[in-house]
Amino acid sequence: MTGKEEIPGVVVETEKSRDITISRVRIENEEGEKALGKPKGYYVTLEVPRLREKDPELTEEVSKKLAEELKVMINLPVDSIVLVIGLGNWNVTPDSLGPKVVEKLLVTKHLLEFMPEKFNTKKGIRPVCALAPGVLGITGIETGEIIKGVVERIKPDFVIVIDALAARSIERISTTIQISNSGIQPGSGVGNRRMGISRESIGVPVVAIGVPTVVDAATVASDALDMMISEFERQAKPGSEFYKMLKTLNIGEKYQLIREVLYPFVGELVVTPKEIDSLIENTSRTLSGGLNLALHPGISYEEVSTFLQ
Amino acid sequence: MTGKEEIPGVVVETEKSRDITISRVRIENEEGEKALGKPKGYYVTLEVPRLREKDPELTEEVSKKLAEELKVMINLPVDSIVLVIGLGNWNVTPDSLGPKVVEKLLVTKHLLEFMPEKFNTKKGIRPVCALAPGVLGITGIETGEIIKGVVERIKPDFVIVIDALAARSIERISTTIQISNSGIQPGSGVGNRRMGISRESIGVPVVAIGVPTVVDAATVASDALDMMISEFERQAKPGSEFYKMLKTLNIGEKYQLIREVLYPFVGELVVTPKEIDSLIENTSRTLSGGLNLALHPGISYEEVSTFLQ
Amino acid sequence: MTGKEEIPGVVVETEKSRDITISRVRIENEEGEKALGKPKGYYVTLEVPRLREKDPELTEEVSKKLAEELKVMINLPVDSIVLVIGLGNWNVTPDSLGPKVVEKLLVTKHLLEFMPEKFNTKKGIRPVCALAPGVLGITGIETGEIIKGVVERIKPDFVIVIDALAARSIERISTTIQISNSGIQPGSGVGNRRMGISRESIGVPVVAIGVPTVVDAATVASDALDMMISEFERQAKPGSEFYKMLKTLNIGEKYQLIREVLYPFVGELVVTPKEIDSLIENTSRTLSGGLNLALHPGISYEEVSTFLQ
Amino acid sequence: MTGKEEIPGVVVETEKSRDITISRVRIENEEGEKALGKPKGYYVTLEVPRLREKDPELTEEVSKKLAEELKVMINLPVDSIVLVIGLGNWNVTPDSLGPKVVEKLLVTKHLLEFMPEKFNTKKGIRPVCALAPGVLGITGIETGEIIKGVVERIKPDFVIVIDALAARSIERISTTIQISNSGIQPGSGVGNRRMGISRESIGVPVVAIGVPTVVDAATVASDALDMMISEFERQAKPGSEFYKMLKTLNIGEKYQLIREVLYPFVGELVVTPKEIDSLIENTSRTLSGGLNLALHPGISYEEVSTFLQ
Repeated sequence: MTGKEEIPGVVVETEKSRDITISRVRIENEEGEKALGKPKGYYVTLEVPRLREKDPELTEEVSKKLAEELKVMINLPVDSIVLVIGLGNWNVTPDSLGPKVVEKLLVTKHLLEFMPEKFNTKKGIRPVCALAPGVLGITGIETGEIIKGVVERIKPDFVIVIDALAARSIERISTTIQISNSGIQPGSGVGNRRMGISRESIGVPVVAIGVPTVVDAATVASDALDMMISEFERQAKPGSEFYKMLKTLNIGEKYQLIREVLYPFVGELVVTPKEIDSLIENTSRTLSGGLNLALHPGISYEEVSTFLQ
Repeated sequence: MTGKEEIPGVVVETEKSRDITISRVRIENEEGEKALGKPKGYYVTLEVPRLREKDPELTEEVSKKLAEELKVMINLPVDSIVLVIGLGNWNVTPDSLGPKVVEKLLVTKHLLEFMPEKFNTKKGIRPVCALAPGVLGITGIETGEIIKGVVERIKPDFVIVIDALAARSIERISTTIQISNSGIQPGSGVGNRRMGISRESIGVPVVAIGVPTVVDAATVASDALDMMISEFERQAKPGSEFYKMLKTLNIGEKYQLIREVLYPFVGELVVTPKEIDSLIENTSRTLSGGLNLALHPGISYEEVSTFLQ
Repeated sequence: MTGKEEIPGVVVETEKSRDITISRVRIENEEGEKALGKPKGYYVTLEVPRLREKDPELTEEVSKKLAEELKVMINLPVDSIVLVIGLGNWNVTPDSLGPKVVEKLLVTKHLLEFMPEKFNTKKGIRPVCALAPGVLGITGIETGEIIKGVVERIKPDFVIVIDALAARSIERISTTIQISNSGIQPGSGVGNRRMGISRESIGVPVVAIGVPTVVDAATVASDALDMMISEFERQAKPGSEFYKMLKTLNIGEKYQLIREVLYPFVGELVVTPKEIDSLIENTSRTLSGGLNLALHPGISYEEVSTFLQ
Repeated sequence: MTGKEEIPGVVVETEKSRDITISRVRIENEEGEKALGKPKGYYVTLEVPRLREKDPELTEEVSKKLAEELKVMINLPVDSIVLVIGLGNWNVTPDSLGPKVVEKLLVTKHLLEFMPEKFNTKKGIRPVCALAPGVLGITGIETGEIIKGVVERIKPDFVIVIDALAARSIERISTTIQISNSGIQPGSGVGNRRMGISRESIGVPVVAIGVPTVVDAATVASDALDMMISEFERQAKPGSEFYKMLKTLNIGEKYQLIREVLYPFVGELVVTPKEIDSLIENTSRTLSGGLNLALHPGISYEEVSTFLQ
C-alpha cells in the first residue's frame, strides 16, 4: 500500500510487490469521470512485467492476487449464481482468450442441481455457469443479444465477462490484467465488438476482466518514437530543432500522423507477439485459476491445478 | 419414387438412385404414432452406404439431395430468418458434428444488416444466424435453456437443429441422414441430452437433422448375433436347438441380455469408428453444403465450395 | 509378488496392488517362443481397469510404477542418449497416442549441449531427444526408413517406441500398458504399420510401449458371445445343443466366422470408445509422466507435472 | 517482361501483371555475391500485395504462377523423387507454415510403389514424399541432422524446403513468396534455425520457398520512421535540422538505434498480424497448390482443389 493521490472524484491506491503492481482506482463522480475519461466505477489493474515469461510460480501468485481482487468486487454469498462469459473468436488466436478461460473453469451449476450431496455451497462450491457466445462473424448475431437472451432466461446474480483487449502500448501486451465493474466498453476488444456489456445493458451486475493481446502497428511506431525522443533528450543537445518539433506534437497528433503515413503501406495492421499461442495458454490459465479460487471459496489452488490438467 | 405402403395413419414413400435411398414418412395421427412409436410429423431419411468412402462427387450429390428435402420442410420466403443450432461437445470428436456444421455455414444475418447492397434477399441470400451452445458439462446450463433464451431474444422464423446421434445399428453410422420436423427427442444424441427441442418447447417451427456417429458395444454384439443367426439359418439345419432358443428371444430381450452380460466387463461402452475424425469432417461438409444450398437459393454449389475452403 | 508359473522357457511373475496388476514375462528360448507365440524377450504388462476413469491420483501411481519397470528395462548410465519415437497419425485421434506422448516429454539433448551449466547429467538430467515421424499416408515414406535414417545420423544409445495398438479384447482398451524389449511387431498398431522396429532392424536396443486404443467390431461381437456362453453355462442347462456347438468352435474359428458374417454389412469396422479424445489425453499424460521419471532420475513427479502444464 | 538491369555478375528480370510482380535474380559470380550480399544462385520473388485479402481467384492465379517458376527451378523428369520438407514449429502459429504446407501436399511415393496401376509417372504423377521434422525445442535434435539422416536413407533426387521467414519490412508479411536454389540461410526463419540447408550441406539439389510471417517491433518502428521522413520531405521544409539528422543515419544505424531504445521496454519483441491463423491457412493453401501443380504435371488445379477439401 504505497499511496493515495488526490484528483477530485478519484481515489487511487497502489500496492507493489516484487513482481506485481496492483493499482485500484475508484471513480466516484462526474468530475472523476471527466478527469479520467471513463465511466464511474471501480478499476483494478495488475501489472506483471514478468508474466510473459510463463513461470509457474508467478502464475500461481498472480492467480491468487487476482482472486483476492475479484472477491472484493463480487462480494456475494456462495449460493448466488455467477455466469462467466468468454468473449472473442476461438479461431483467431489473439482473440481466443475469453473462450480459453471458459474452457478451464470449474463449471458447477448443473452439479449442484444433480449431485447436491457431492457438490454444494456448504463445501464452498458456488453455482457457476459459463458461455463462449462467439463473435458476430461466426453467429450473425450481436453477441450482446445472445448474452441478454441467456441472462434473461437463467437469471444469474452476477456476470463476469472475459475479453482480449487492444493495448494502447506495446509493453502492456500479456503483462496487465484489467478488472472493472463498469463493464466492457464497445470497441475495446481485439475484434472491435460493437456493443458494450454493462449492468445497464443486461440488468445484472457485471465485472469485466481484460488482458491486452494485440496492438496496432501505429502504436508500436509511436511508442518507439516516444522512447527515442526521451532517449535523445536524456543524452544530448536539448535545443535542437528536431525534438522541438516532435515535442510540440501531442500524443494524439503524433499517433494520428503515424497512422496516416503507415496506412497506404500496411492498412490497419494490428499485430500480436509471435509467441501468442503460448501467451494465450498461460494467460488463460492465470485468469481461470483466479476465477476458480474467487468463485469457489472451498477449493484450493492445488485442487484447481489438478483439475486443470 | 417406388412405393406407398399402407399402415393406417402413416404415408411412406421411397426413392432410390444408385447411391442414395430416400424414404419419406408422414405420421398423420395417433394411430400412426402408436404404430411407429414416434410423434406426429414428417420424417425423411437419406441412406447412403458409400458415404463413409468420402468421395467428393458423392458428397456433392448428397448435399444437393439434402437441400431439396430441406426446402420442402422449411418452405419459407427468402427473407425469413433461420437460426441453425449445432448441438454437441466440440471436445468429443464423435459429438462434434453440430458445431462443425455451424462452422461451415454461410452465416449472413449481420451482412444483410450492415452491407445490404452486397448481401440481400433479391440476390437469393437469406438472413441466417447460427449458434453452437455447447453441452451441460461445459456450460453448466441446460442447452435447451440457452436456445430458448436466444430464440426469445432474436425471434427467428425457423430453427434448424443439428445433432450427432447414437445409432441403433452399426451399419447406420455415418451413412444415414435423418431429418424431421418433430424436433430432437431427449436422449437420442451422443451426449444423452436431457431436453427435447421442438416447436412446443421453443415456440418456433423446428427441423432436426441428425447423423448417427456412435453405437454401444451391446448393439454391435447384438447386430453380429442377428447376422450370425440369419447366416446359420440360411446355411443349415433349421431344426437345431441353437437358434430355436435364440429366435425365441425378441430383439429387445436379446439386446438387454447382451448388455447385462457385457456390463461388468466394459460398462456402458459406446464406440465410434476409428476414422471418426475424417468421418465427422466429411459429414459436416455434406450437411453444411446441403444447408447452404437450401437456405440461400441464390448461391450455387461451386460458390459454397469456394467459401468452404 | 504373487507367483512364478512353470512353462518351459518362460518365467512369469505377477505383482498385484489395489488398482494395478503387473505381470512380467521373460521368454528365454525357442521353446518359450513357441509356447507363447512371441519372440524371445522381456514383456511387462500393467493392467489398470480403473485407468479409464482419469483419476489424477491413479495417473500418478501408474506413472511411477511404469517408471520403475522402464528403469529395469533401460538400465543405462544417465549420460547415454535416448531417442523416443512417437508412432502414429496425429490426425486420427485413436492413433495419435505416440505423437501426444512425445509432445509431453522433457526433451533435453539440446539443452545439455547449449546450457550445460543448467542442464547436466550430474543433476540427473539425461540427454533425451524425440521424434514423431508420421505415417506412410502422410509422408509417403516407410516410417521404419525415417527412423533408421535418424538413428544412423544421431546414434542414440537406446530407442523407445510408443504406439497405439489394436486390442484383442474390448476390456483392454485404455486399461493396459504393454512394454517389451523385443520391439514393435509389424501390423500390431492402429494404423497397421508394415515394418517392425527392433534391435535387429535398427541396430540399437529398443523398448516398445503400447496401449490398445481400438478394437475391431468382430472382436466386440466375439467377446460378447464368449461372455454370453460363460453366462449361460454358469446359469443353466449345460447339456443344451446351443453351447455344445459354440464351445466346439475354438476362439480363432469363432472370430473368423463373425468377421465373415459382419463383413458385407460393415466392412473392416474398427471402433474406439466415444471418449477417445480424453482417453488419449490421459493415457499420453500417464506414459509421458512415466518416461520423464524413468529417463531423468533427478526430476520429481511434481516438477514433471508443473512442466506438463 | 519489363527489364534487365546491369549490376556486374547479376541478371535481373521483372514481370508484372495486375496483382503479381515477379522478379528473377541470377547471381552469377563473386562480384554479384558481394553486390547483393547473397550466395550465387537463382532467386525468384513473387510480390502479391493483395494476397492478404484471401481472394480464392487470386490464390489460384498465384498458385499457377508459382508452379511455373518452380518447374523452371526443378526441371527434372517426372520419375525423379522429390522430398518436401516443412520446417517450423506447428505449435507456434506464425512458424507453422511449413508443416501446414506439407499437410496439403499430394504425397505419392508410396502410392506409386503399392498401386502402380492407378498412380504412375505415365499419368503425370511424380513420386513425392514429405516430412515436417519439427524444431530443436521439440525434438532436441538439430533439424538439419534429421533431414540429412532421412535424405541419406531415402536418396531423393531433389529436396524442397518450406519455411516461414522473418520479414525485413512490414509490407512483406504474407505478401511475398521467395524462392531460391541456394538453400535456406541459417537464422532467417521465424524460429532462428541455426543450420543452413543447401546442396552443399545435404548433397542433393535444394530449392527453398519462404514467406515472411513475422517482423520485429524495431523493424515496424524503423519502417514507420522512414515513411514519416519521406512524408515530411515530400510535404515541406527540406532544410530543417530534423531530417538532416535522421537522413544522416543509414538504415542499419537507425534500426540499431531503435532496437537499443526499445529493448529495455519490450525485449526482442517479434510480432505477427492479428489474423495470422487465417493468413497461414491461406498461404499454405497457395504454396501447396503451386507445389502440387509443379510436381505432378498430370494433375489439374481443380483436382488439387478437390483433394485439398
